[in-house]
Amino acid sequence: MSNNNKAIVLVSGGLDSTTALAIAKQQGYECYALSFDYGQRHIAELDAAKRVAKHFATIDHKIIKLDLGQIGGSALTDSNIAVPESFTEGIPVTYVPARNTLFLSYALAWAEVVQANDIFIGVNAVDYSGYPDCRPEFIQAFERLATLATKAGVEGTAIKIHTPLIDLTKAQIIQQGIALNVDYSITVSCYQADSNGYACGVCDSCRFRKQGFIEAGVADPTRYLT
Amino acid sequence: MSNNNKAIVLVSGGLDSTTALAIAKQQGYECYALSFDYGQRHIAELDAAKRVAKHFATIDHKIIKLDLGQIGGSALTDSNIAVPESFTEGIPVTYVPARNTLFLSYALAWAEVVQANDIFIGVNAVDYSGYPDCRPEFIQAFERLATLATKAGVEGTAIKIHTPLIDLTKAQIIQQGIALNVDYSITVSCYQADSNGYACGVCDSCRFRKQGFIEAGVADPTRYLT
Repeated sequence: MSNNNKAIVLVSGGLDSTTALAIAKQQGYECYALSFDYGQRHIAELDAAKRVAKHFATIDHKIIKLDLGQIGGSALTDSNIAVPESFTEGIPVTYVPARNTLFLSYALAWAEVVQANDIFIGVNAVDYSGYPDCRPEFIQAFERLATLATKAGVEGTAIKIHTPLIDLTKAQIIQQGIALNVDYSITVSCYQADSNGYACGVCDSCRFRKQGFIEAGVADPTRYLT
Repeated sequence: MSNNNKAIVLVSGGLDSTTALAIAKQQGYECYALSFDYGQRHIAELDAAKRVAKHFATIDHKIIKLDLGQIGGSALTDSNIAVPESFTEGIPVTYVPARNTLFLSYALAWAEVVQANDIFIGVNAVDYSGYPDCRPEFIQAFERLATLATKAGVEGTAIKIHTPLIDLTKAQIIQQGIALNVDYSITVSCYQADSNGYACGVCDSCRFRKQGFIEAGVADPTRYLT
């Protein structure tokens, strides 16, 4: 921990970021939750983010509106690109260009304002190895950038990007969350959940989640349509 | 130049970014202009950005709305912090937390979508040495990040961040622009220009601009209130 215990935690409302928040809390950080409304198809995810931030009694929770629709290029923000129902090799169409770079940049901006030196992001290099901005070398490069980009960095305080899930399988993430009493029923992972929070059950995100609960040997509280 | 000649150019409507755009055009790039509406006090700047993008016949011009008011922390986005009228040591209150990190992140997202491998930003380390995110080491760190963050990077194509003004004085920037026939009367640099595009004449940005024209030996076409 740095010279204070404030941390910005990226909270999407999904399983991974909720576990990352639980870990940050358990490590003693005062957490500032940051979510993004980036035209993702599943507004249910933001409702989940609000529940999660409240459940973990974060100091503050901001939902930043990101103007990504103008940029386009992803099945998650462009209604002309379909969300696939089966796994494809390479970088998936659900990849949002520069998404984690943008998310971390906003986290960095807020960190400067509240004088936090720590940022938590629930990225995972195991299940999402197809996303370039989920890899450890990306995170290291951002950490270096963050320290050079900020007043704190200029004054000698390094910014630390915490990725507590980066090397874990989905099953291990769930097991760690369960050990911290995370209630996964309040989270939503589906790329196209309906407005009542029901998950489609067939997209990549649903399949990783389902499989994770099976492998973890934990009952899956998710409400799936199929 | 990379394997294509597309470039994203950050265009604020000010003197520096307009010169950077002129340089990108002169180097043969097909330019995609990117501006931000980030709650800056001077909407006149965005009007200038539109004039500049049109004047230079950019392929496209997007104005992305940035939700920085929620984050706060700068005289440029927080109406509770006054824009100073005299130079102060250290990082000025007009510094917007993580601004160039955010700007470059959006440029990177758009670069991925249009498959541009080049980004131009008119940062300058001479006049704005108080801003951490205008330094060459910041730009280098972003370039490294950009290559790790993208599909193109994963596939082996480096992203180049061009900073043609980084080592120039304001006078040298103006001289270079004049040599490229830039009409600076269509640009607005003032931190608090009025809705008719009149510059205050007293903020840091106005003072650097005024002094630059004097040192360059070029008539200043700016309309100042004082």
